[in-house]
Amino acid sequence: MSRDIESLRSKLRLFAEERDWDKFHSPKNLAAALSVEAAELLEHFQWLTESESATLPKETHFEVSDELADVLLYLIRLADKLDIDLVQAAEQKLLKNAEKYPVEKSKGKSTKYTDL
Amino acid sequence: MSRDIESLRSKLRLFAEERDWDKFHSPKNLAAALSVEAAELLEHFQWLTESESATLPKETHFEVSDELADVLLYLIRLADKLDIDLVQAAEQKLLKNAEKYPVEKSKGKSTKYTDL
Amino acid sequence: MSRDIESLRSKLRLFAEERDWDKFHSPKNLAAALSVEAAELLEHFQWLTESESATLPKETHFEVSDELADVLLYLIRLADKLDIDLVQAAEQKLLKNAEKYPVEKSKGKSTKYTDL
Amino acid sequence: MSRDIESLRSKLRLFAEERDWDKFHSPKNLAAALSVEAAELLEHFQWLTESESATLPKETHFEVSDELADVLLYLIRLADKLDIDLVQAAEQKLLKNAEKYPVEKSKGKSTKYTDL
Repeated sequence: MSRDIESLRSKLRLFAEERDWDKFHSPKNLAAALSVEAAELLEHFQWLTESESATLPKETHFEVSDELADVLLYLIRLADKLDIDLVQAAEQKLLKNAEKYPVEKSKGKSTKYTDL
Repeated sequence: MSRDIESLRSKLRLFAEERDWDKFHSPKNLAAALSVEAAELLEHFQWLTESESATLPKETHFEVSDELADVLLYLIRLADKLDIDLVQAAEQKLLKNAEKYPVEKSKGKSTKYTDL
Repeated sequence: MSRDIESLRSKLRLFAEERDWDKFHSPKNLAAALSVEAAELLEHFQWLTESESATLPKETHFEVSDELADVLLYLIRLADKLDIDLVQAAEQKLLKNAEKYPVEKSKGKSTKYTDL
Repeated sequence: MSRDIESLRSKLRLFAEERDWDKFHSPKNLAAALSVEAAELLEHFQWLTESESATLPKETHFEVSDELADVLLYLIRLADKLDIDLVQAAEQKLLKNAEKYPVEKSKGKSTKYTDL
């Protein structure tokens, strides 16, 4: 478990406990909240061209940074509730993706892949 | 920057570079992909009761772990493209949330809050 | 084509034309916007119990009605851009679903189905 | 109420009743399912350029049509559960949007608007 993620996890636990929010934090509800935050992130980009999306004005960049943070926080909270080690899961997924998308067959093609 | 996240970031960079996928990875596209992955995660929970969502069968738990990994990977990739330090952004957001939801006013109430 | 949907479609065309918004309304962008609106709808329900979600306070009910409207409007606009007859597509999908989920095999089970 | 939408609504009611699925169809669950379907729609577009998204290959066009149908079906089902007239809500939202985005101030600008 990453030390930084572990630290955020502890803070989120305390945060929820102090506010008696644990009762709202079922995995189902947290998955919905995570999805809502991901959409709030997407909202910033929906009318931009791809090229505009790479050169955000300072204020938008700050707001986007905030939305990324929200997604990470819900992700950590949900992983905590499900007892999942996020970093380990990501390492394993990367290995799986390397097998699924061999370099020579995937080069330059976006078709037929939906994951990283 | 967290060492584990930095390591995943480097692997994702190499992964995209080897496959010539960088051209697909505009922030706009990555934000859409992140949102799609978050919905795939939610899909596992949509017909479950909250209580069922806390006690997933082993196979579902494994699939959910895979979806969490996908969300984290796109999150890291998007933060990389936008030059955002995820952990730092999350730490700052937590401080902001602590101000926004003071313990005494937020206790046990889900109304009027949409963030952690 | 449903007469009501046709009427909304015409109004949306005029709306976009008058504002010179057609250039933003690529199917890709409209699909992102639709997804964002669906998440805004979900946001109203994320911390509610299922039973609370069926008995919304009057004000929430009104806001939810507004979000449903947004989803329908983007749906009609996107279908227009792709030259798809929404009602006909829905009729066909219902027939397909009836085959996919035969009554005797699907009765009372949510597992293994993700569509209506 | 539009006659076509009313007809789809009746068919969806019967569909759920026959399969004893009504118990899964709380507004909360339907809103999650709608959001998941909207993301499945978006998935088809996530790596396409805006221009590619306007000229889909025949097979993709058919799959996209199916996803649009899914969104409409859940939308009608959710509106039914909440006793909302979709077409009427959309008509009202259009009037509201016309006030919110006056032609002269909105012309050609995507900034600061997030609705149609």
